[in-house]
This record gives sequence, C-alpha cells and structure tokens, in this order.
Amino acid sequence: MTTVFYGSRAWGLFHRASSSSSRVWTHPPFVGLSPGRGLSRPPPCRAAHSGVHRLPFATLSQQDRDFFQTLLPGRALTDPEVLEASNVDWLKSVRGSSELLLRPRTTEEVSQILRYCNARGLAVTPQGGNTGLVGGSVPVFDEIILSTALLNQVLSFDVVSGILTCQAGCVLEALSSFVGEQDFVMPLDLGAKGSCHIGGNVATNAGGLRLLRYGPLRGTVLGLEVVLADGTVLDSQAPLRKDNTGYDLKQLFIGSEGTLGVVTAVSILCPRKPSAVNLAFLGCATFPQVLETFQRCRGMLGEVLSAFEFLDSACMKLVQDHLKLTNPIKESPFYILIETSGSSAAHDEEKLHRFLQEVMTSSLVADGTVATEDSKIKALWALRERITEALTHDGCVYKYDLSLPVQHIYQLVEDMQEHLGTRAKNVVGYGHLGDGNLHLNITSPSHDPALLAAIEPYVYEWTARHHGSISAEHGLGLKKRNYVHFSKPAPALRLMWQIKSLLDPRGILNPYKTLPDRASTD
Amino acid sequence: MTTVFYGSRAWGLFHRASSSSSRVWTHPPFVGLSPGRGLSRPPPCRAAHSGVHRLPFATLSQQDRDFFQTLLPGRALTDPEVLEASNVDWLKSVRGSSELLLRPRTTEEVSQILRYCNARGLAVTPQGGNTGLVGGSVPVFDEIILSTALLNQVLSFDVVSGILTCQAGCVLEALSSFVGEQDFVMPLDLGAKGSCHIGGNVATNAGGLRLLRYGPLRGTVLGLEVVLADGTVLDSQAPLRKDNTGYDLKQLFIGSEGTLGVVTAVSILCPRKPSAVNLAFLGCATFPQVLETFQRCRGMLGEVLSAFEFLDSACMKLVQDHLKLTNPIKESPFYILIETSGSSAAHDEEKLHRFLQEVMTSSLVADGTVATEDSKIKALWALRERITEALTHDGCVYKYDLSLPVQHIYQLVEDMQEHLGTRAKNVVGYGHLGDGNLHLNITSPSHDPALLAAIEPYVYEWTARHHGSISAEHGLGLKKRNYVHFSKPAPALRLMWQIKSLLDPRGILNPYKTLPDRASTD
Repeated sequence: MTTVFYGSRAWGLFHRASSSSSRVWTHPPFVGLSPGRGLSRPPPCRAAHSGVHRLPFATLSQQDRDFFQTLLPGRALTDPEVLEASNVDWLKSVRGSSELLLRPRTTEEVSQILRYCNARGLAVTPQGGNTGLVGGSVPVFDEIILSTALLNQVLSFDVVSGILTCQAGCVLEALSSFVGEQDFVMPLDLGAKGSCHIGGNVATNAGGLRLLRYGPLRGTVLGLEVVLADGTVLDSQAPLRKDNTGYDLKQLFIGSEGTLGVVTAVSILCPRKPSAVNLAFLGCATFPQVLETFQRCRGMLGEVLSAFEFLDSACMKLVQDHLKLTNPIKESPFYILIETSGSSAAHDEEKLHRFLQEVMTSSLVADGTVATEDSKIKALWALRERITEALTHDGCVYKYDLSLPVQHIYQLVEDMQEHLGTRAKNVVGYGHLGDGNLHLNITSPSHDPALLAAIEPYVYEWTARHHGSISAEHGLGLKKRNYVHFSKPAPALRLMWQIKSLLDPRGILNPYKTLPDRASTD
Repeated sequence: MTTVFYGSRAWGLFHRASSSSSRVWTHPPFVGLSPGRGLSRPPPCRAAHSGVHRLPFATLSQQDRDFFQTLLPGRALTDPEVLEASNVDWLKSVRGSSELLLRPRTTEEVSQILRYCNARGLAVTPQGGNTGLVGGSVPVFDEIILSTALLNQVLSFDVVSGILTCQAGCVLEALSSFVGEQDFVMPLDLGAKGSCHIGGNVATNAGGLRLLRYGPLRGTVLGLEVVLADGTVLDSQAPLRKDNTGYDLKQLFIGSEGTLGVVTAVSILCPRKPSAVNLAFLGCATFPQVLETFQRCRGMLGEVLSAFEFLDSACMKLVQDHLKLTNPIKESPFYILIETSGSSAAHDEEKLHRFLQEVMTSSLVADGTVATEDSKIKALWALRERITEALTHDGCVYKYDLSLPVQHIYQLVEDMQEHLGTRAKNVVGYGHLGDGNLHLNITSPSHDPALLAAIEPYVYEWTARHHGSISAEHGLGLKKRNYVHFSKPAPALRLMWQIKSLLDPRGILNPYKTLPDRASTD
C-alpha cells in the first residue's frame, strides 16, 4: 500500500532551490495527519540533505513562453501561486522552482511540447497527481512541469473482456467508479486514489492494496501510448491480453518514473468486482507462527485471499496510545489482518471459518475476530491503515519501505531494535506480508543525526545482504536513486544509463530522478 | 495454449541450408499426430519460402573447437547425428547446419562461451527444449547451438512465498512435479511441458493454458539471471514480489527469443495448487451468445474460472469425422468449454451449477454437460485439444495464431469464409476466448499457392485493421518476423532494433530471428 500523507502548505519550512543547487531532505520534514482529524506539528525530522547541482539545460526565454502560449492557449501557466502546488511534493520534502506549468489535452500536444523542449534543451518534469513519496514528480530546479491533468478522457471500455483504455491523466478513483458501475474493479487500489493519475501509477509501477490478488501492473497493463523525448509517439495501445510480436517496449516505461517517456494513454485489464468481502483480525505469539498461518491461509483460502497484512505489538500500542483505537482481541506480540474477496459471501465465510478453526485448533493463532459488515471491516482496517498517522505523534519518524524474502521480513526489525538499543524511541514493523513488503519505522523525540547515522547505511546493507530491495513499491525518484546500488548490481546500473541515453540522449526527461549519479556507475 | 506437434524425423523432406542461403517454409511441410495414435502423412503444405542470406559472421575454426573442448570437456558436441535433433525445429519446417552444440552447466560457462563468441564474431543460437512453433530455436545456417539442457538444477523453493528459483534448463513438467509435491503449481502450463525449458518459456513469453487464471509471465516471473552477448552476467534474480529500484531490465529478455541475452536462471511465483476442478461443455446458437455467456461467467464464477475456450461446429465435425470423438451434447453452431479450479469442490460445483441455471434459463446456452471426474474431464478437454490433430487429417492446413479484441474474434473466421468461398475446404475457428486468442485454420486438399495468396496478406491486414496481433503467443522467430509491421508501428520497430544494437552490437545472438529485416525499418 502506498501510504498517504496530508500536509499543510502553510507550514512553509521548505528550502527554496537556488539557481545552482537544490537541498533535499531525505526524510520528510513533516508528516501530517488524515483530513478531518486536525493537524498537529510533529518535530521536523530534517536529515542530512544531498547537494544536487543543476545540469546545463537551457533556461526559459520569452520566445519559449510565447511558443507554449500559442500551442496551449490558456493552458501554459506561469502564475507562481498556481505553480506552487506543482512545485512541491506531497510529503513537502522537495521543492522545485519551475516557472511554467503546461496542461496538454492531447497526445499530439504532448508530442509538440517534447519535440520543442528536446530541440531547445529545456528540461521537463512529467507530473500526474503528484502523490509520489520519493520526490519523483516535482521539479528539482526550473524544469517545465508537464501535467497530465487534462488528459483525462476514458477512451473505451469493453464489458466482455474488461479492458479499459483511457488517457493518462484519469484519476484512479474516477476510473474505479467508472468501471465499478459496470461491475468491474481496477486491478490496483492505493491510499492516494483520490488524486493519483493512472499514468503516474504506471510510470511509478505502483503496488498498492490489490497486488496480492491481481498481480503487478506489469501483468495487467496491456498497452501504453508514450511520447518519447524527441516527440515521437510510441503507440502500443492495442487492447489485447496476448501479444508476442517482438520486444515488449511498454515495459520500459512502467516504473521508469517519467525518465524515458511520457505516458499519455493506458490499456488495462480490469477484473470483475467481487460481491463479498470478509475480514479477520488475529493474534499470534511468534513471527514463525505468523508465517505458518500465512502458509495455511494461502492453501485454505486460495483464490479468495485478497490481503494478508501484519503489525507488531509496538504498532498496536501506537494506535492505542495516540489515536485511542481499541484492540478488539487480547494482546499479542503480532497481529494479522486477513481479507477475502469473492463472488459468494456464503462460500467465502465458510472457507474463512474452516481456516480459522484450523489455525486456532493448531494453536497458531491465540485469539481473533471476524467482520463481514462494512463498519466493522473499516474499524479493523483502521488498526493497520492508521499506523502511519500514529507514528507521526510519536516523534520524528525514519521510514523505510523494503522488500525482503518473507522469512527474513521481521528479522530486520529485531536486528534493528538490538542494533539501535536505547538510541531509538520505537522501532516498529508492519506491512504487506503477502507481498514480502515491510514498512520499517523508527522514531525518536527529535531529529537525531547520530541515530540516522546508526540506521543508514545499516538498513540498506542488511537489506542487500538478505537479497532484498531498498524500494518495494515507492520507486527511487530523487530521494533514493543514489542508494540503488544496494539493490542493483553495477552491470544493471550501467545498462539503465545506456537505455536512458538511447531514449533520451539530451537527458531532458525528469532529470535528477531514478538513475544514480552517472559517475557512480562508470 | 501452445499446440504440440509431433513429427517423424524419417520423413526427411527438409531443405538443407546451403552455406549462402537458407530456404524456409512459412508453413510446416508436415504436421504429425499425437504419439500412440500412429503417424499419418498429410499432404505437404509447402508455402513460398523466403530467402535468408547468411550474415558475415566468422566460421568455426579448429582453434575455436579446441577452445570449447577445453572449456566444456565432453560437452562441446560435433557429431552430426547428435546435432541433428538440435538443427531441426519441432515442426520440422526449419533446418540449420550447425556443427557445434555446447552444453554448459553453469552461468560462468555461458558467460565464457559468449565472451569468446562475441570477440570472435561467431553467431550463437540459444536453445531450450526446441519446442517453439516459429523457427526461433534452431540455427538457420551454421550458428553455434548453446543448449540449456544441463542448466537443470532447482536452486531454491520457498514454501511460504511460493517463489521458485531454478536454472533455465529445468523442464516445465519436472518443475510442475517438484512444486506439486509441495502443494503448489507452476503459473504456466503448455502442451509442450514434457520437453520445454523454463528458460525457453521465459525467452518466448509463453502463454499457455493457465494465463486466464494466473496472468502472463511478465507478472509471475520475479527475477532473471541473463548473460549478455559480451559475456556480462546481469543478475536480477532476487526472489521478491515487489522491487521498484529502477528500470525492470528483466522484462527486456522476456519474449526476446534469445536475441538480447541468454537466460540462465529464473525466479517465478507459484500459486497454491487448486484442490478441485470442474468442467462444463456447452452449446450456443450464435457468437454473441458465446460472448454474453463469457460475460456472465466472469461475473458468476469469478475467482474460480480457469479456462474459457470455444470451438465452432466445423471444428466439432472435424474431431467427429477424423477422430471419431463423440459430441456429448446436441449439435450447435458454437461450443464452449469452461473450467473451474478452486480450493473447495463443493463451493465450485455450487457456483458452476448456479451459473449454468442462469445461462440455460436465459436461453444463452442451448444444451450442456458437466464433468467432475477425471476421465470425463479428459474426454471433454479432448474435444478442444485434439482439433489440431483432426485438422491434419483434413488436408493441407494454413494455421494462424491471432490476438483480437474479443468482440471481433469470430468475425475474422466469417469474413475469411466469405472471402475464400469455395477455394478453401474448411475455414474453422477455435481458441482461448478468455484471452482473446483465436486459432484460425484453413484447409485445402493439397498445397495451393492461389489459396495462400488469397489468405495472406488478407489475414494480417484484417488483424491490423481490428487492432489485433499477428502473433498472440507463439512469437515471431524466423517465420513471422517480417510480418511484424502489421502489429507494430515503425517507431516501435526502430526502437527494437536500437535496443538490439545496444545489447548485442555485433548481432551474434540468435540472428535472423524476431527482428524484421533492418532495411524495412529504416
């Protein structure tokens, strides 16, 4: 799941990028709260910032402005106040100083924009809903912002095959409603669904809540239309489930964070909407029991299993203490949340109850509760979903989104606890166990450079040693790109750069993102 | 489903490639029968062959032979009789004249082979089980054959996550048995499973019988180890479900048919084994009713639907006439085969019966039968699976494997019937409706160049006009590569060539495959 943060622009504690260097906090200075719960001000967790220097791109001239005003009348925006929201990322941890926001409506307009920018050597940052968590969707300096907001048309939906084709700027939630009316669901769901664009989801290879059930976007995205850096339109938009005619070029753009091309349209396969949802919230005494429960669960719930999440007792304590949520079962070192989604409520309930009987009888699970009605389901999900929010009340938070072979997933939390000892206030672990995705969070009363130095690179080295990934679902963006060598070997990094140079020889597309500093890969 | 052909090598009607030009039949000269049913000799359907000229690669010297004998003692084979099976494709439609077959056991050996060949300018054809249907897995001239047969070790299997990691030469059926013992299934299944290698499956992006349920390899393959043309080992083998650290390079090699690198190891996600399987065989009066039945089926069977296949009445007549199979229901213009696989037999049967009641009541389906026991399931599957075999008894067969938006899938068969009129003996359609994959087959008493000229390029133009793909699951290989422009636009073909040049600058990897003639893309 992509964690959603809400912040207040009014806090105004961002560093304004100078013309020659931008300062970036590798951790968000503030993490806000869910709307409707008021805003508090957690202590600023400013970490050591990394110096990034502006590359020698052209700067915007009056002639450039005139060109774009003519090309996009009323949609080439220069008002600093209008640009404010697009210059700052959602976590409010990166601020650019772009002076031009372009809002094309058609692929042809995107093509003309890029052709012009490529010829002029003007850098461009593609931007969808600007909900990314690694500083990938905002300019770092004065890059032109190319927004997909007006590329928001559904192009077709085939109710037989479930294949949706739409422009890249469609908001995920709007698409969910649209296909939902026809009894389908989008194959992905995220906390940010109210703002994020499907094109951005594809460009960042978003994971989200439904990955366990419907698999990654690499399997469900059937076609893309992409505009390359030089304005060439690459159309592989055929709404087909199978196509083995040469290299699958669209895969290059999935997860490339706008550095290889701008996604302008997407074909995606939508599953039928499940008619029944059940939830179980269980307690386990040990992590091996959590793993054993997961294994039995996969076998017994099989095709109806749609989520298997876990949290440790420290997380439960945080949501109890800071948010006054109630633990519905007796205290346990670990908690599991299991969701089923299927086409028959009676069948799914029966499967779930048989599974619960099995894990209780074999003493894998100490206690548990089950929900079938909406309000109770939401209350149980809140115990897992609001951990992020609870953490912000606990102090300065150091957040890591790691992918690990499932048997090692909690060992990192325990090793980190031992490694940090009393230096940390809390070291907690939760996440998508079903996907091998751990959210490791460490809190301290205030920003603590010594603590951070104890965490990093330890956390990355540990992850690398256990063949994990330093970014499970959030991507690299600006913030994590220079840690990528912990997850990718040198030949892979060299090849990434070669592909970047092939597709974007002048490097105008989303510079300073995804790829590590070139010198480090030579 | 990949159709499996069995042929007799003794027929000996292949064209032996000369040193300067190879002749290739774009249709198999013979299509044989399933083993145990005896072999008949259908009329040779030789089609116009395409002239392919040998590129200026080096030729094998005694020094080269000595190098490989030293590197792979006893595993650098030169005996022409031993090489025979590797020089000819499964359909016996392409014959190369390689004089060296290498059987490395380790990735390091593969790396040394390619480093040497790249330096020397020696061309290499990687070969798995040699079960491909488009002439992609055999040399065209004297390319060195690099077999993955001895790269056949399982490296790890995680019973919690279901992630299997193995060398590329593991046979699919052996892997199925291996994970089956631990209550998992491979996420793909093919007719060729007894011979095909998992590395070949990945390299060709094999579709197969389970795609409807478990999705394509692009979602289930989690990691690859690949050796590049210059011997560089590219390791992205981390057994992780999620990894968003930069471009997903492994996707380049999935479906590239050995033209970009040699896959040496694979990590793949295995689903739990379903404990219950049911089959329904139904008759429909019209194709729109087939589509409507599919739609209801997706809604009502939801997560347990594992196959939705169709055949027309002409196919039924062929299996009745030539193979003496019995139609278990009353005659209909269209037949549907629906399979469910799930974790509860009782639940699945109940879902299936409710669905059947619905489609019978609403007169979508005219007649039907259901099977739950193994022998009856097999008998019903035979009506669909043995169509290929029945066709070989009907004369010369022109075969097309097309992907189309599902609403157009049968229109092509009808248009082709009208277009060909009495020139064709039979024009029949069947396939994986659930995947939008049509197998269009046209028979005539003997090879008929005028008929072929009426079919091609008509069939490709029709497919292109309806935004389909000229190769749904078989790939391009040698035979279809020069038709790719019907499915891929010029910018995509140019980019494919640029990627080929980037990864394999000397072009030594599987030349004459996948990519269209270069001149056609300039």
